[in-house]
Formats: sequence, structure tokens, C-alpha cells
Amino acid sequence: MTHESTPAAVEPHDAVDVIRAKRDGGAIPEDALRWMVDAYTRGYVSDAQMSAFTMAVLLNGMERDEIRVMTDAMIASGERMSFAGLGKPTVDKHSTGGVGDKITLPLAPLVASFGVAVPQLSGRGLGHTGGTLDKLESIPGWRAALSNDELFAQLQGVGAVICAAGSGLAPADKKLYALRDVTGTVEAIPLIASSIMSKKIAEGTDSLVLDVKFGSGAFMRDIDRARELARTMVALGTDSGVSTTALLTDMNAPLGLAIGNANEVRESVEVLAGAGPTDVVELTVALAREMLALAGRPDADVEKALTDGRAMDAWRAMIRAQDGDPDAALPSPKETHVVTAPEDGHVARLDALSFGIAAWRLGAGRARAQDPVIHAAGIDLHAKPGDVVRKGQPLFTLLADDAARFERALAAVDGAWEISPHAPATHPIVRERITA
Amino acid sequence: MTHESTPAAVEPHDAVDVIRAKRDGGAIPEDALRWMVDAYTRGYVSDAQMSAFTMAVLLNGMERDEIRVMTDAMIASGERMSFAGLGKPTVDKHSTGGVGDKITLPLAPLVASFGVAVPQLSGRGLGHTGGTLDKLESIPGWRAALSNDELFAQLQGVGAVICAAGSGLAPADKKLYALRDVTGTVEAIPLIASSIMSKKIAEGTDSLVLDVKFGSGAFMRDIDRARELARTMVALGTDSGVSTTALLTDMNAPLGLAIGNANEVRESVEVLAGAGPTDVVELTVALAREMLALAGRPDADVEKALTDGRAMDAWRAMIRAQDGDPDAALPSPKETHVVTAPEDGHVARLDALSFGIAAWRLGAGRARAQDPVIHAAGIDLHAKPGDVVRKGQPLFTLLADDAARFERALAAVDGAWEISPHAPATHPIVRERITA
Repeated sequence: MTHESTPAAVEPHDAVDVIRAKRDGGAIPEDALRWMVDAYTRGYVSDAQMSAFTMAVLLNGMERDEIRVMTDAMIASGERMSFAGLGKPTVDKHSTGGVGDKITLPLAPLVASFGVAVPQLSGRGLGHTGGTLDKLESIPGWRAALSNDELFAQLQGVGAVICAAGSGLAPADKKLYALRDVTGTVEAIPLIASSIMSKKIAEGTDSLVLDVKFGSGAFMRDIDRARELARTMVALGTDSGVSTTALLTDMNAPLGLAIGNANEVRESVEVLAGAGPTDVVELTVALAREMLALAGRPDADVEKALTDGRAMDAWRAMIRAQDGDPDAALPSPKETHVVTAPEDGHVARLDALSFGIAAWRLGAGRARAQDPVIHAAGIDLHAKPGDVVRKGQPLFTLLADDAARFERALAAVDGAWEISPHAPATHPIVRERITA
Repeated sequence: MTHESTPAAVEPHDAVDVIRAKRDGGAIPEDALRWMVDAYTRGYVSDAQMSAFTMAVLLNGMERDEIRVMTDAMIASGERMSFAGLGKPTVDKHSTGGVGDKITLPLAPLVASFGVAVPQLSGRGLGHTGGTLDKLESIPGWRAALSNDELFAQLQGVGAVICAAGSGLAPADKKLYALRDVTGTVEAIPLIASSIMSKKIAEGTDSLVLDVKFGSGAFMRDIDRARELARTMVALGTDSGVSTTALLTDMNAPLGLAIGNANEVRESVEVLAGAGPTDVVELTVALAREMLALAGRPDADVEKALTDGRAMDAWRAMIRAQDGDPDAALPSPKETHVVTAPEDGHVARLDALSFGIAAWRLGAGRARAQDPVIHAAGIDLHAKPGDVVRKGQPLFTLLADDAARFERALAAVDGAWEISPHAPATHPIVRERITA
């Protein structure tokens, strides 16, 4: 028995004291940090105060425990889902994003084909290519918005769902992200980690595999920063009761041969048919193994499910469950422009970011959230770094609905690829594995 | 002859780029920094963006040239005065503030008595004691607000003016200071320096002496930070064409024996009459010598002017010129409370900040800009550190208009003074001199 009261989550604090403590390199006590996030979400802490705080976090960092509290406070700002009633394990994947990253499309049905629930709640893309939902919307009839009941039923039946995340998850993160975007504080690793993980944890998954990319086409250019982010997120997931593993993967060249929306769906279906580009297969298999291990199926024969039609069956069921026609023709571009090799040699370099920007300029991505994407636009690559090409052979094809877009797209890839007499060094796409 | 155009001060930049450059430890190019200050003043850069920027400045610093540009941009945001037509040198003093700091009152007429113009444009106090204007308003009839014509005429005639600074000087600084106050970024030395100096340079003085205080009752607690601020301001003044010298002075104990408003005027008049507490005389003389040296009068016999009545004559003329009656009785407190020595010994410690807070609680200072101060309130000290006292001898007297204020004032000084059998170490009040 004690007469001391425990501090409430929203016991008032002074925002200036919280800012100064972080500015001076200290850790923020749990109740003060919870108050800061809550008061900011409600508007009692101003944008100016929160932005000074986030800059101090960017420059002085946060301790592991602070990141957990910050994340938990953002989760507490909104609703929290639970899949406890499903009767099967749930496992989710998150990628930090890259050029040609369609992995979610073959991965979700592949993993679900082993009786595991894969709830992939996704966003739309902002930037060089569309997001996962934009890519799937290339499929006639397919719809991204599901009710919670539909989502639950599809997880119980098909097992795999890729759909739009509801707006009720972690509203504090939404407000904070918009602020960071205009105040030069996006790059703070504790804030990136808590932003990603607050949404994933609020979604109620049991376990999570992170694909943390590094290189020219990734948010993190160098592997050291990517490793730091991955470690931070794995610790955060673990501390929050979500089993989490991360792979550090190479994003210096585009993933696969298709960059865009409809062409990325086409490539994903090739992988589900047991074919497809080596790097896409390699990464899909590696991530599926991690997800199935966390879901209690470490011995699942992932490669067999890609060749024996089980993964394809799950894909078709998943698309149909959301009113899509898996057999319908996908949109084709009105205009194409082929770039050929100027000489014999090895493709030595094909810069991910430049090709991403070119695809964006062709209409595959959007600059503002309300803009549409052009599903048929993008780039088909015909060779990847390490491949041998002959003079005159097609290197890549630009796809667009309007030939006027080719000029600016070509400018983006000018100097972004290289043919060399020497074979370049090659690396496996999965560079490191990070566990708790 | 050249066809290159120089960049305009307001050529548009991207606020996020400017924030990121400072965040990453870089220096901001002149045109970008000018744009940032101008755009913030006009409202094109948001409070959130400026506060992220100021936090980055606090943590990553600014180069000497950036501080000059920042200051110049703040000056350019408002009007700039000029005393070029006076026909005599102008010299100004600025103190970073302390407990019992009435030095401007005897100093301005003392220096003016040598034929030098001393335009002391001052603010009102916020915090433990009133500002210089509050102190002078203890004098019946005296008015702080002068027109520019009145200011000019008084400088030409009397030579000394202490009056309210117009609101047109450096409005960017006003907006920025209010932001820093609520975002934990007050303590950034480049921003403190540019805030102080932008106003002083906009006032149009030829030369400037800075009294940079350190210790318990000062804004800067330790001498190293005070030295850094002093060096930054001296460099900035020099770079901006204002001859600037700084003294680092001790503010661990209150200055003089009077803390308040009317009692500080009384003490100032004692100094002008050739008497007064040793430390006040010492600091007044030291600052007057620096000011006169910068004004081209290095050999002026400052101490003689305090004893032969010249400084007192200048004081009386200065007060009369602003409608004050130098012979009128000053307000007296309705209530007093005397604290006596509990034992024989040496006064070993008398903490400036605690006595400042006690004076504030007695009514001598204000918490909000719109509050009045009580001119008769404050504290009279009867002994200072190093003095020998006997048991039962008065140590200090609290002055108030309401006896109910004594309890909280006494709580503020509880443990803030000490009687010891041993004489404490003593230091000269002026600890260092910093020149360009």
C-alpha cells in the first residue's frame, strides 16, 4: 500500500525544459517525453518548439529507452490493431524504399502460402516511383481500401493482404513527419526509427522483417548509417514485444529490370512463376526465409513454393479478394524510346537514383500526394551491372504516354551508366543480417 | 568593368537547404543567410524552420563572418540612427546584466563631463530587478521617452542621455528573441552576440564598451562562456566598424549595497558625490576609462571628475533635461525587515542570484513586460563578502510596500549567505580586458 500517485502520461511539463535537456545532451525522462508527444499532437506544444526539439535529437541522439518511449507515445496517439483472434501467426515486412522495389508483391503471397498471415498495410509513393499500392492499382479492378472486417477475413482466408493503412494509426507521427520534412530534421535516426516502427507496431503484427537499403537509390547512402538505423529499429521492435530482424541490402543499382508500376507487377508475376531477375528472386527468398523463421516455420522450402505454383495461387487469390483480375492485360505505354550500347563491354554501373528520377520524370512517380501516377510509365532495363553487352544492343527502354517526357528523362540518366572493357566487382544483394 | 551582378539580399533560397547546411556543420553563404533573416522577418520562413536553424546554430556554432552577416541582416531589418552631425565622438556602454547593476547611472554623466556624447538607449528589466529606465523612473518627473530631435539636442548639450530605445531598431531581433525564448535557444553565443550588437550598431555609436558579467547573478555562470561571448562581440563590433572593448566582471555577489530601483539611484548619486561603495566606484571608473580611451581621451582624469563635482553637474543636467528633479525625495518603502548577523565573523558569501530573486519577490522587478515595478522595493545590504560583522549587527534590510512579501523573499535568501571565522579570498571586480 502506498499513497504516492504514479505520474499520469499527460502530467504537464515545460516544453522549454524538455528542449534544453535534449539540447544539453541529456536523456528525457519517460513522463516528460510522453507529455511532449501528447501535447504536440494536441497543439499545446508549438511547431517551433517541436522543431527545436527534433533538431536537438538529430544532433545529440536518443538513448534506446527514449526511442521506445517516443514510439510508444506515438502509438498511443491513435488506434491500435490486433490480429490475436486470427489463430495463426502474423508477420510483416517493411522496406526503407528503393528504385524498382516491388518485393512486397511476390513476397506477401509467397509467405502466406505457408499458412502465415501477412498484413502489408502500405502507403502511396512520394518521389521517384509509385508506392506498393500504386503498382497494384495497375491491375484492372484491384482496390487498395479495405474495411477492418474485410482485412481480417482476407487474412484468415488467403493469408496475404496488401492494402491501404488507415489514417487512425499514429496520428502524432503524421504531424511530426510533416514538420520534419520542412525543418531539415528528416535524417534523425531515432525519429526515422520511431516513425516507421510506431506504424508497424500499431498495426499489431507479431513479428517484422526490415529491408534496410543503402546506396545511391536508398534514403541512407552509406552502409554505416543504414546499419545504425537497422540496429535501432531491431532494438525498438524487440523492446516493444515485436520479434524483429533486419537485412541490409544493396540499392546502388535498381532492383530487377523493371522500374515503374505496371512493369513491376509484370516482373513480380514472373518471380511467382518461378522465373524473374536473379536479384529480385534472391531478395524475395531471403526476406521470406526471415519472415517464416520468425513465424515459427524456419524449415519452409521457400524456393519450391515459387516453382510449384503455390505462391502463384496465393497471389491470384489475393488479387481476386480485392476485386482485381489477375489475368487482365496490364496498361502498356503509348510511347517508347530505346537506348542502345555505344560499344561492346560490361555494364559497369547503372545508378539507381538517376534511373529512379528518370522514371519519375516519365510519370511513374508523383511530386504531390494528390497527383496521379501513370501506371504504364517507367523504364525497362535490358542489362544490369555485370552483364556483357554488344554495341547496338538495347540497354534500356523508356516508357511514357507522351514522347515529350523523354528529353528530361534522358537528361536524368546522362552519365548514370557506364560500359567498361572490364567486368565490375559484384556483391550479393543481402549484405548483412541484424538480429536482436 | 564587369558584367557579373552581385546577388541581391533577398534572392530566394530554400529554408530547408539553409537549415541542413548549418545542421551538418557548414557555414552559410552570405546571400543565403541574409535571405533567411529577411524572409523570417517577413514571414516567408516559418517559426518552426527558424527554430530548427537556431538550435543547429546553438549546437554547431557560427563562424566570425556568419555572425557579422547575421547581425548586419538584423540591422537591415529596421532603421539605423546616425550621430555623425554631433561634432563630438559618441561612445556607448552595454552590460549583460546583473544584480545591483546601476553602473550606467553614474557612468553616463561621468563620461559626458569630458565632452563626449553618451547615448544610452535602454530597455526595461524583465526578471529580478528593474532595468535602467525603471531605476531612473524613481526620480519624480523623469521621463524615458524622447523624440529623436530631443535625443540629438540633449547629446549636443548635456552630452549624456539615458532613454528608451525606439521600437524601429532591428525588428528581426525582436521577433527572433521571442522565438528563442520559447524554444530553448537563448543560450547560443552567436545569437546572443548578434542580438545585443545589432541594436547597439543600429543606434549609430562610434565606439562601445561591453561589461560582460560572469557568476551566479549573471546570464553566463562561468567565466569561460563569458569570455567566449565577449570575444565574439568584440570581433563583431570591430568587423562592423564600431571600436569595441570588453571587460569581464565578477557577478557572484551583488554590485554595491543597494538592490532595487530608488535605492540604486541613491547609491549612484553617492558615487557621483565622490563616495559610494568601493566595487561600484571601481567598476564605474574602469568602464569610464575604457570609454574615454575609445573616444580619444585616454588621459582623462576620471577619478577627479567624481570628486570635483563635474560628474555630479552632468548628472543633474541630464536628469533635468528629461524633466526630472534631481533634488526631489525618492520613494521610501512602507515596510522594512532587518536581518542581523547570528554570530561574529567574516561575511564569506552573499549569493547574487538569490538576493536578486528576493528583491524581485519584494516587488523591485517584474515577471511580465506590462507589470509595474515598485520603486521603493528592494534590499539594502549593510555588509559585503570580506567585511567583518559582529553578532546582532544588521546584515541586510528588506524593503517593501507590503510586509506579506517578506516571507517569500526570506525564503529566497535562505542559505544564500554565510558568516565564517575565516576571511574569504577576494578578487578584483574587473577580471579581464578583451580588445580586438
